Amino acid sequence: MQLVSNNIREAMGGASFIRKMFEVGIELKKQYGADNVYDFSLGNPDAPPPAGAAAGLCKVAETANEPFALGYMPNAGYPETRGAIAGSLTREQGVDVPLSHVVVTTGAAGAINVLFRAVLESGDEVVCPAPYFMEYRFYAGNFGGVLKPVQSRDFTFELDVEAIEQALTPRTKAILINSPNNPTGQIYTRAELEALADVMRRHMRKTGKVLYLISDEPYRALNFDGVEIPSLFDIYEYTVIVGSYSKTLSLAGARIGYLAVCPAMPDPMELINGVIMTNRILGFVNAPAIAQKLLTCMIDEQVDLRLYRERRDAMAKVLDHAGIRYNMPKGALYFFPQSPIPDDAEFVNTLLKERILAVPGRGFGTPGYFRLAFCVPMSSIEKSAEGFARVVRSL
Amino acid sequence: MQLVSNNIREAMGGASFIRKMFEVGIELKKQYGADNVYDFSLGNPDAPPPAGAAAGLCKVAETANEPFALGYMPNAGYPETRGAIAGSLTREQGVDVPLSHVVVTTGAAGAINVLFRAVLESGDEVVCPAPYFMEYRFYAGNFGGVLKPVQSRDFTFELDVEAIEQALTPRTKAILINSPNNPTGQIYTRAELEALADVMRRHMRKTGKVLYLISDEPYRALNFDGVEIPSLFDIYEYTVIVGSYSKTLSLAGARIGYLAVCPAMPDPMELINGVIMTNRILGFVNAPAIAQKLLTCMIDEQVDLRLYRERRDAMAKVLDHAGIRYNMPKGALYFFPQSPIPDDAEFVNTLLKERILAVPGRGFGTPGYFRLAFCVPMSSIEKSAEGFARVVRSL
Repeated sequence: MQLVSNNIREAMGGASFIRKMFEVGIELKKQYGADNVYDFSLGNPDAPPPAGAAAGLCKVAETANEPFALGYMPNAGYPETRGAIAGSLTREQGVDVPLSHVVVTTGAAGAINVLFRAVLESGDEVVCPAPYFMEYRFYAGNFGGVLKPVQSRDFTFELDVEAIEQALTPRTKAILINSPNNPTGQIYTRAELEALADVMRRHMRKTGKVLYLISDEPYRALNFDGVEIPSLFDIYEYTVIVGSYSKTLSLAGARIGYLAVCPAMPDPMELINGVIMTNRILGFVNAPAIAQKLLTCMIDEQVDLRLYRERRDAMAKVLDHAGIRYNMPKGALYFFPQSPIPDDAEFVNTLLKERILAVPGRGFGTPGYFRLAFCVPMSSIEKSAEGFARVVRSL
Repeated sequence: MQLVSNNIREAMGGASFIRKMFEVGIELKKQYGADNVYDFSLGNPDAPPPAGAAAGLCKVAETANEPFALGYMPNAGYPETRGAIAGSLTREQGVDVPLSHVVVTTGAAGAINVLFRAVLESGDEVVCPAPYFMEYRFYAGNFGGVLKPVQSRDFTFELDVEAIEQALTPRTKAILINSPNNPTGQIYTRAELEALADVMRRHMRKTGKVLYLISDEPYRALNFDGVEIPSLFDIYEYTVIVGSYSKTLSLAGARIGYLAVCPAMPDPMELINGVIMTNRILGFVNAPAIAQKLLTCMIDEQVDLRLYRERRDAMAKVLDHAGIRYNMPKGALYFFPQSPIPDDAEFVNTLLKERILAVPGRGFGTPGYFRLAFCVPMSSIEKSAEGFARVVRSL
């Protein structure tokens, strides 16, 4: 008897390279011990949360036994939390973001889902530069939308704005970008984003319909070289920024993030009220109360960036030593190097002989590369060096 | 420019009686002071959370600064939390519920959404006894499903099993029940549920397809007279129970609940893995980490039931005094009395003259009645008595 829908049955049967690596990893760790397996397959941030996490939870505990302390609140979140996020975004984006334009969400993943539920008609398209975070495809598909990946420029992963323009159709409802990028570590420049905005404005004039720019920014704080991360609120008025504190505060499991609507968007209340409603009817109801209160206490903190920068630099040395080509990631937690052989899946399988776990680029829509997550202990990075080198020599 | 989909635009335009009352309530409270407005329109549990809430949060704080403390975990939840819920369900349902059959969810609302996403094809029908919690319609609609309400028996709100049988079609994927019930306070008996199961088994034999019984049980602990709440795991093998700790522990904002698959369901792994996947791809990812850890500390606690029972009894006296007919609620937090005049919306409007806020029955799919939430201070209930009586006398 079939217990799930055709669509979910098919999705469950599909190859998830990350899941496959996860299972292989468990097996290898059993056999060789966890210290002797170099697992670069998972992006679970391992920096300890800042000091405010414990202090903030104790503060939440102080009033936790009062009536309504953790009860229902407005679906958009506690006004204090919305205000704290709005203030933080105002500083970060360099644009005045009012509280009314911020909805507290169950992480960035929750934010994208409530936004898609609010705006997509069945058959609408979402254009997305590839390589891309593979969950995006499901988020659009949850509501009848279709993800349309467009390859970025080889190796550098800069936006190919002409190719994006060619992918736009009357059914395109949004372009979804992610900068700093998972899996490439790329940060888009102001020039790239302004060119994109020009294309989008032209398209809107042609169709007479809204074309959203959705900017997924969970890695914004992980910017290792201090390059500019331009504010899209400054560049394109139909922008919606989504973000989370999963990486900034190492709270990935706590599910706390936000959705912010561009202050320059004309008559935005239909959209804002729409996402507040879909946040409710998708069953989020409101972002988790305890995490909201905790965030209000620690909004100005962040994990120690040096920890990740040092690992990025160490990983670069390991790849240099092995002779593997890569574009240095400016942010996020990943390298996306070129596979030394054309078949990235075969290369990743070969790495397993050295107990190195990676994810092939085709898992992100871009074959010929592979992803390494460097949120792992420094010793793992250093100890993997000879393994990488041996594999490359053996090819 | 239209910013949201047609479907959401229409839903936002629809009359929400609860929202209307919320707005009228704000206005009245401004004018007369909060103490002089008797607001029975909202089901926000006002019992203080049990002592374990503060103690549990302090315990979570102890390890909150360790790496991964609040990071990603398996999408089904922490094994400790799944195990704690499984143990609690085993005691509560009188049926051995293994950890593998429990998924920790973002409240019961999140659980119903992930279940619908996993099982519904577009156009599938979900049959539901009316009156019903109005959000159910959205939950099904989020994924192309259609809610098919079937009126329960007048006044007593017992299941009309024959009417339910007649509503079943080859597109019926599930029957969704809620006991103790919002808005009626009814608890279904073993005889009613066994008759329902017989009908469902017959239908399954006829169609050769699965027909789920979804039992939404967030009010299970609010059972004032100690009547039996039969375990559906014992009655029908294709049962999925969803629940939450919003009412049991007064943690409605914390968004913590569960989905449990009947241990007797044949080959259930496709369904279990399906909901674990949809929990991920809908953007919940996992139930909120902090609330999961907190729940593990306080799974055996519950709010003081006497508080709600005393209010139920006081509310009954108020209605008796006014001569309003009702079926005594056995559980949950609501009365669903008969409107003294046929037009329930008009009656509720008349109550406003006495600064009494209620929700008309048509908001729950059953005109001719109205809902009163009694999770309000005892003084409000007592002080509303003369207002109710005056309104009824004036008709």
